[in-house]
Amino acid sequence: MKKNIIVGQSGGPTVAINASLAGVIRGAMQSSAIGEVYGALNGIEGLLARNIIDLRRSIKTAEDFDRLAATPAMALGSCRYKLPPPPHEKYDEILKIFEDYNIGYFFYIGGNDSMDTVKQLSKICAEKNLDIKCIGVPKTVDNDLPITDHTPGFGSAAKYIAGSIAEIALDSGVYDMFSVIVAEIMGRHAGWLAAASVLARDSVGAAPQLIYLPEVPFDEECFIEKIKEYSKEKKLLIIAVSEGLKNKDGEYISAAGASVDGFGHVALAGVGKYLEELIKDKVGCKVRSIEFSVLQRAAAHFSSGTDIAEAGRIGEEAVRAALSGQTGVMMTFERVSNNPYLVNYGTVAIEKCANLEKTIPPEWIINGCDVSKELVEYMRPLTVGRAPYFEKDGIPEYLFLDKTIVSR
Amino acid sequence: MKKNIIVGQSGGPTVAINASLAGVIRGAMQSSAIGEVYGALNGIEGLLARNIIDLRRSIKTAEDFDRLAATPAMALGSCRYKLPPPPHEKYDEILKIFEDYNIGYFFYIGGNDSMDTVKQLSKICAEKNLDIKCIGVPKTVDNDLPITDHTPGFGSAAKYIAGSIAEIALDSGVYDMFSVIVAEIMGRHAGWLAAASVLARDSVGAAPQLIYLPEVPFDEECFIEKIKEYSKEKKLLIIAVSEGLKNKDGEYISAAGASVDGFGHVALAGVGKYLEELIKDKVGCKVRSIEFSVLQRAAAHFSSGTDIAEAGRIGEEAVRAALSGQTGVMMTFERVSNNPYLVNYGTVAIEKCANLEKTIPPEWIINGCDVSKELVEYMRPLTVGRAPYFEKDGIPEYLFLDKTIVSR
Repeated sequence: MKKNIIVGQSGGPTVAINASLAGVIRGAMQSSAIGEVYGALNGIEGLLARNIIDLRRSIKTAEDFDRLAATPAMALGSCRYKLPPPPHEKYDEILKIFEDYNIGYFFYIGGNDSMDTVKQLSKICAEKNLDIKCIGVPKTVDNDLPITDHTPGFGSAAKYIAGSIAEIALDSGVYDMFSVIVAEIMGRHAGWLAAASVLARDSVGAAPQLIYLPEVPFDEECFIEKIKEYSKEKKLLIIAVSEGLKNKDGEYISAAGASVDGFGHVALAGVGKYLEELIKDKVGCKVRSIEFSVLQRAAAHFSSGTDIAEAGRIGEEAVRAALSGQTGVMMTFERVSNNPYLVNYGTVAIEKCANLEKTIPPEWIINGCDVSKELVEYMRPLTVGRAPYFEKDGIPEYLFLDKTIVSR
Repeated sequence: MKKNIIVGQSGGPTVAINASLAGVIRGAMQSSAIGEVYGALNGIEGLLARNIIDLRRSIKTAEDFDRLAATPAMALGSCRYKLPPPPHEKYDEILKIFEDYNIGYFFYIGGNDSMDTVKQLSKICAEKNLDIKCIGVPKTVDNDLPITDHTPGFGSAAKYIAGSIAEIALDSGVYDMFSVIVAEIMGRHAGWLAAASVLARDSVGAAPQLIYLPEVPFDEECFIEKIKEYSKEKKLLIIAVSEGLKNKDGEYISAAGASVDGFGHVALAGVGKYLEELIKDKVGCKVRSIEFSVLQRAAAHFSSGTDIAEAGRIGEEAVRAALSGQTGVMMTFERVSNNPYLVNYGTVAIEKCANLEKTIPPEWIINGCDVSKELVEYMRPLTVGRAPYFEKDGIPEYLFLDKTIVSR
């Protein structure tokens, strides 16, 4: 009897996570060894609640794969739930559900925490001699997973950030005067996204002139001195900063600049707003802070063709890996070359990557406020091309899954 | 001897203002009656400084028109300078420059203040019996110019806003819980841009559930009651607000919620941040405010095909109007029908529109927190289609003008 697959999505959204879902579905539908193609709503939490749907109901035509891949965030919904450490009855519940639904393959698309779930489940299946392959498909907008060359979702966010910095440079540069823009970009611990702003220089020349990353302790005095230097040039100065900037004592810059709002709360002002006020105070020039907010991870209309194609392919390769007998692994990209840009798809034992974080190597950071040529060469191929995007009457058109629950 | 043209750009940036510039250049280059095609850098301020360039140097191929049209903000630069009321020596200076450069046609692409400049110059030329045609080409992201059906630049911003609200709805809707997003959208006096968020419903259903406009006094108590109602549904609630929301005394909501920052300044918190804190305080739920900032008027990669095409055409028609002898007029769109969407290009005497503002008609606003079907039908055609966009290695590619100054 054919075994079925089940796939779930977990953690924070990106624009590429449904492309990976589409890839898993495609891989499963291409294989005669696989029966049903199930999806768990809201990750492992929905799995435990038996909120399980039949994905074949929603994906019927070749275009449906593209439409799903062009839909940002998680079509299946997400969760932040982390399984308790084994032994725990939750694992028995999950195995019972796997049995009821005749599951032979479990795919979990997510970041660090999700890889931990895959690790625990694959260990327990091995211990109990159950033939259930558990595979992790990476995604994270932050690009902070170890071993894999990069992660699906990052390239699109990088493209959005670089493109938006370029647009801001033109918009804010129309007047003939000195002014400062502080762009606050996602990244609590790893500065890959803020670093991606460097690609805007290919488009508009100097901007961003300064890039501050959480990997380097932030020095306010030195920062203000640099701005005063730039003020002599009477031009627009764009500064890209990671939201996770910390001072030399490891405290978030945003927290240090806490402001009291009208209700007497201590509001956590973001680092961008804090630096805007700091610059106003110490330099006294025109300054504006811009927070890229969730749009940097959600802007499916501006995603990278390379990223979305790779995210789909890595999902498909995950099915292939499972069918070839692998389990307890995370899928990886292995870069072959930059020019031409080539990657292989591989796997890594999940113990080697769960709960680890990849930050920018120190040698790729220059003077604490810029990045190296090597970083640019690493990043540039990831943003290339545009992905399929659908709209009707000018407004995005998404694929929404049929969420009818399948009981077994 | 052939007369030359000069064109300038003024006011705040949009993504369509270079499309209108491209249209003026195309119109001029198509006419055998026109000699040189000059551009004034930084509007009337640059004109007075004789910072004048030859636009034929930069626009040589058919693709150059598209590349210029795909470049956001002002390729010529902008200014905020408003001519003093006549009589004033500045007008004599301008007329001398027109004489030196053999100018027969002056085109000014801009908003309210720019139309005032066109009005004054055309009056003075008429008084002095000078054969110089002065034509205003409208642009404003806010859609607040009177008489014309809508303004170039607005449709693209509307598309960005609706598309971004749709993306945020998917991004923030992945968890199965009640939470609130407050999206702060441009518009100090007219709420057209915030109202455009309604188009997201075509894409994602209910969002935005609430829309607050500066045309209606904002009632905090009623606002909080509505959110409490929605909280019972345990779903994502998206609220679109104009930055210019005012209370019943006409005071900006942002000012009322002024916060004291870490430096002891009274920082002008935007209305979005203010409402975020208000909701936290009064409802106590998860809430996030997102400010669309300058990206809503600068995101050329996501502009409306209809808007960019119309912006180009209205520039071309401006040249045609000047050649046919018109002066002291602003170009207008006259809508013929919604379905199929058809517009005519017309002109209006500039006195009728300079310094006037068009807000949303009261009958298009529902219960102070929604908009009517008529507004949706008015707005929908303006966002349709995508405009040409160029990129290299994944990053936008713009056309930068050759800014060599031409002395005469």
